[in-house]
Order: sequence, then structure tokens, then C-alpha cells
Amino acid sequence: MKLNLGFIGFGNVARAFSRVLAERQSILFHKCGLELKTTAIATANHGCVLSPIGFDLVKAAELSEQGLSFTNLADSLPVSDPLALIERCDVDVLFETTTLNVVDAQPAINHIRAALNRGIHVVTANKGPIAFAYNELKALAAKNNRCFYFEGTVMDGTPVFNLVERCLPATRVLGFSGILNSTSNLILTRMESGLSFEDALAEAQSRGIAEANADYDIDGWDAAMKAVVLTNVLMGGQLHPSQVTRQGIRDVTARDLNEAAGSGKSIRQIARSARTSEGIKITVMVEEVPAASALGSVRGTSNVLLLETDLMGEIGIVENDPGVQQTAYALLSDLLRIRESLDP
Amino acid sequence: MKLNLGFIGFGNVARAFSRVLAERQSILFHKCGLELKTTAIATANHGCVLSPIGFDLVKAAELSEQGLSFTNLADSLPVSDPLALIERCDVDVLFETTTLNVVDAQPAINHIRAALNRGIHVVTANKGPIAFAYNELKALAAKNNRCFYFEGTVMDGTPVFNLVERCLPATRVLGFSGILNSTSNLILTRMESGLSFEDALAEAQSRGIAEANADYDIDGWDAAMKAVVLTNVLMGGQLHPSQVTRQGIRDVTARDLNEAAGSGKSIRQIARSARTSEGIKITVMVEEVPAASALGSVRGTSNVLLLETDLMGEIGIVENDPGVQQTAYALLSDLLRIRESLDP
Repeated sequence: MKLNLGFIGFGNVARAFSRVLAERQSILFHKCGLELKTTAIATANHGCVLSPIGFDLVKAAELSEQGLSFTNLADSLPVSDPLALIERCDVDVLFETTTLNVVDAQPAINHIRAALNRGIHVVTANKGPIAFAYNELKALAAKNNRCFYFEGTVMDGTPVFNLVERCLPATRVLGFSGILNSTSNLILTRMESGLSFEDALAEAQSRGIAEANADYDIDGWDAAMKAVVLTNVLMGGQLHPSQVTRQGIRDVTARDLNEAAGSGKSIRQIARSARTSEGIKITVMVEEVPAASALGSVRGTSNVLLLETDLMGEIGIVENDPGVQQTAYALLSDLLRIRESLDP
Repeated sequence: MKLNLGFIGFGNVARAFSRVLAERQSILFHKCGLELKTTAIATANHGCVLSPIGFDLVKAAELSEQGLSFTNLADSLPVSDPLALIERCDVDVLFETTTLNVVDAQPAINHIRAALNRGIHVVTANKGPIAFAYNELKALAAKNNRCFYFEGTVMDGTPVFNLVERCLPATRVLGFSGILNSTSNLILTRMESGLSFEDALAEAQSRGIAEANADYDIDGWDAAMKAVVLTNVLMGGQLHPSQVTRQGIRDVTARDLNEAAGSGKSIRQIARSARTSEGIKITVMVEEVPAASALGSVRGTSNVLLLETDLMGEIGIVENDPGVQQTAYALLSDLLRIRESLDP
């Protein structure tokens, strides 16, 4: 099966994915019957280009890392902007990996709308569109009979949406709890080891886990957005990120952590979603939990999600020490799911 | 879609499954389009019966619990034994849930062979046939173009095989570690709370978690069989249960557990599988691990499996406080997977 790929956004995740595709090209062809060609790439800083022949993705990754324009790619045809590119491209699967806009998730929502309306399957690792417009985009994908997958929006490539949809048939998710933000968890666990908040944050930034402006992680916005995504997708919710009761980790002190540790507890930023008599409620709060528990034992950048279900009781999924490779895997697993759905 | 079901073995798991089917009958029909009828049940102690009209499964569960014969069921036609029943039945999906035979997994392997050879899809929660004959039975199912699923053999209905097959495409499982035996873990964690080995064992038995003869759990055989199943299915192994290096929990003392707890450690029965230069090695050993870790934090009857993969790093799946309901769910999820594969 020949599939043409397109990229909107070409940052760390898309570049890691490009290298996975190049490394696994032979396996993808021989085991999955996939012949892939990238015919469109749009970025804010490196230009928007089309190529009917197909780009060398590893070369594109290198140019992007060197801060050079994609017009340096062989056979590249420049286009004015991402929406123009989506209108003109010959693409079967579009990967939307632009940076999150926490205010309204734009222009990513518009990119996805335009692609689905043109009959293009969409994969995204950008949680904004799912947090703000999941129900609309899902309906649009269904109307156009196209796939719309987003495994990478929560816990990278760890199966979360696929786990529930594909492995827990006929179960209802009643609620969940989880540690979903790597930066906050790394800071809290490094502070447990004696680092100051500032030094722990600096470490997270130098390791590329936290952005230069880490407020979004530290103040619980990232966990809140992910909790909304999980709630709306897995529990049939209709919640908006502004409806989350949210507490950041800024006020946690070394003394709090030490005192907790002394009584066998850990302090963690925990996202929870529960069905109540007034509808679904989501919280992201700093909580003290037993250190020797599924939540309390999660250290560093690791994540965990505990799902409470009707038929299967409580099951949890853990991601240990993730990196950009794991987010790249999310894009690959979504691509392979599209391949499966096109030719079952 | 109309499917006729058959049961070989009708113990706790099959009875719990029967009640789930009865409770969810309407959902299974309206949401999954499934119309189910049970036309064959074979047991060692309650007879073997056929019914073209279909049995009342809840009534069968009641008879079985009252120690009465299935010949009391309306329209039942007695048959001499399970193999005769498999040869004569009009069944689409057979559920093999007989008791584990740890010596050679018979007669369960013969039941599964006979059913697959007759073109019947097979679901089993019996780990024996998978531990002893997975590669043969898988080939037989493929040859006959029939489904052969066994999610319930490890960690009940928690997705383990489905997780890897359906949610981790193109990844290779490099190895794993896990806590797979509920009885041993319950005994160790109850001993941590001050109970003697004997009292903890008695509690596991009174709760129906351990058999009257719990040697099989305590001496590590159950975990070893499950580790072989995981290795052969997920890692392409060809191992036999006798090849597992195995240590039971009999020699663990309250003092050992106290000393470990004093230094922030837990003692757990841990199954591990790893690729080595001499092939895959499986061990089931009593180990001291950090209490605040994915393995050390698992308490009571809960289980955990940590998978080490090439593309997705380490991910874990946890089952909290399982009961027979969760094993029954395994049969349901396998049935729904068959339904999906018949009509994608």
C-alpha cells in the first residue's frame, strides 16, 4: 500500500518520527506492506513545501535542526502557508504536530478541519485540538469517513486510547487518576532527593523535558488539558479545560516532601476524573499518597494512568522514563492503525 | 450475528462469565449485534449435554453450584464425554476452562485440538495448553482459519496479549518482569502486616484465591507457567515450563520482610524473562525490590507486568485487586474479538 505523508509542524517529535520511519523502512515495507512518501511539509520557521516526487525526511530533519529552510530540499515547491499547503497537497495521512496553543488550540484545529474536509486522514500529537474540539473533530472525521488518531497526546506512545478502544470492549470507564505531567513529577522527585525547586526545574529544562517557560507544566495546565482529553474521549465527556479545578506544584517545599517521606508518603501532582451527581468533575491537585502505591511509586519523568472500569475493575498503565522516541512511536502506531483500517 | 457457544469445564470462571452474558445480553445484542445461544456444556462432575434449542446459562450456573447434574436442564441431550461432545456439537465458539493439569496440560490440549480441527473458534482461560503447546495450537488455528484467544491465562482480563498485539504494532518485546501470582503476593503482603505464613495462606484459601492445595502457587509453578506463556507468545520463545529457574516463597520469614521494610524494600515473587546469548532465560525468584517501585508497590492479589520493548521503552500494566469477575471479562473480551474478526 502506497501512502503519501504530510507534516504540519516539524519539531522534535516529527524529526524523531522521520528517523524511525527511515530506520524501519524495510520492516514497514516487508511486514506491513507500506510504501511511504512524504509530499508536504509546513512549518512556521522553515517554510512550507510540496514535492510530488517525495522528500528525504532525514535530510529535512537535518535542515530543520540547522535552522535552514526546506526550500533547500531537492524538488521542493514553496507554498505560502499551512492551509494553502493542505488545500494543494497530494497527501493521504497528515501529521499535525504544531506547538500547543493553550488559549484556543488554533491554528491546529483549523489544520485538522481542513485536512479532514479534503479527505485526508489525520494523526496528531497536539493535545490542544483534542482538549478543545474533540467531539466536533471526531464527528467531522466520521462524516468524511476518515481516520483521526491522537495516541501521542497523553503519555506519548503508551497505549491509552488504543488500550480502551481496542482491548477493553464493552467496558465503561467510570473514572481515572493519574500522573500525567513529566516536568512536575521530575521536579517533585528531584526535590525529594534534595534539589531545590529552581535546580530541579533547571535540570528538567536542560534535559529538554520542560520548555524555557515551564509555567504551563508547573501550574498544572498540561495535566489539566490531558485530563480533559482523557475525560472527553474515554468517558464521553463534554468538558472544557477551564472547568478543571487546578493546583500547581509551586508551593510544595522541601520540608513538605521530607515530612511526607518520613511517614511513607509521596507528594504528587495527580489528575482525577470522576462521575458525580453534577456530572463529570476533573481535578489536578497536589496530593499526599503512599510512597509504595501505584501513584506514589512513579518517579522522574514516568507517568501512570489508573482506569476505574465497570467490568474490569481497576487497571493501570505505566510509562517509564519516556523520551521523544516514545512520542514518535505514537505517530507510528497511529499510522499503522490507519494502514490496518484501510486494508483489514 | 448469531453465535452458538459451548463450554468445556463449568467452574467459577465459566459461571461468572455466564452471569455477565445474561446481565449484558441487551448491550451485546444492541451494541455488538451479537445473538448468543449455548448449545453444549461438558463437565467432569455435572455431565456433558447438548441442546439445539439452547441452555439457560444462569440455570446451568445454579445447578453446578448446587452440585446437580446438567441433565436437569430443559431439552438436554446427554453425551458420553467432552471429546464426544466436541465432535457432535453445533458450536461456533468453544470456551475451554477446565482445571489446569501441571504435568502435561491434558486433556485440555486435546479438547482445543479437536475443536480447532472441527472448525470451532476457541477461547481458553487455562494456561496449561498455552504453556505446553502454544506454537502447535497457534499453527493449527491458522491452518483451520479459526481464532484462538487466551487473554485470561495471565492477569485475568487485563489486556496483556491484546495490548502487545493490538496496541504496540511493529515493536519487539525484549524482555519482561512481573508479579503474576496473586496467592504468593497476598501471602507476602499479609505477612508484612504481621500475619504468619500459615494464617496468610489460610486467608488466601478462605477468600477463594488459593486452592486447598496451594503448593502450585507458593512454589512458583503458577508464575513459571505464566512466564512461559508470556515468553512464547510475546517473545517468540519455544520454552517449556521445566526450563524455568524457580524459587517459591516458603522460606521467606517475617524477619526477612521486616528487615526489608526497614530499609524501604519489599520482598516479592518476581518472574523475569530476558534474551541472553544462550537464548531466552526465564526465572521466578524471591527478590528484594524498592517498596516505592512498580514491582514493590504491588500489594495483595494485584499483579503487574513490565514490558521492555525496543521502540516504546518500558511500559507496565497493572491489575488491582482482581476477582473472578475479571477472569470472566477475559472470556468476554476474547469473544468480542472473535466477533470483530468475523465481521470487521
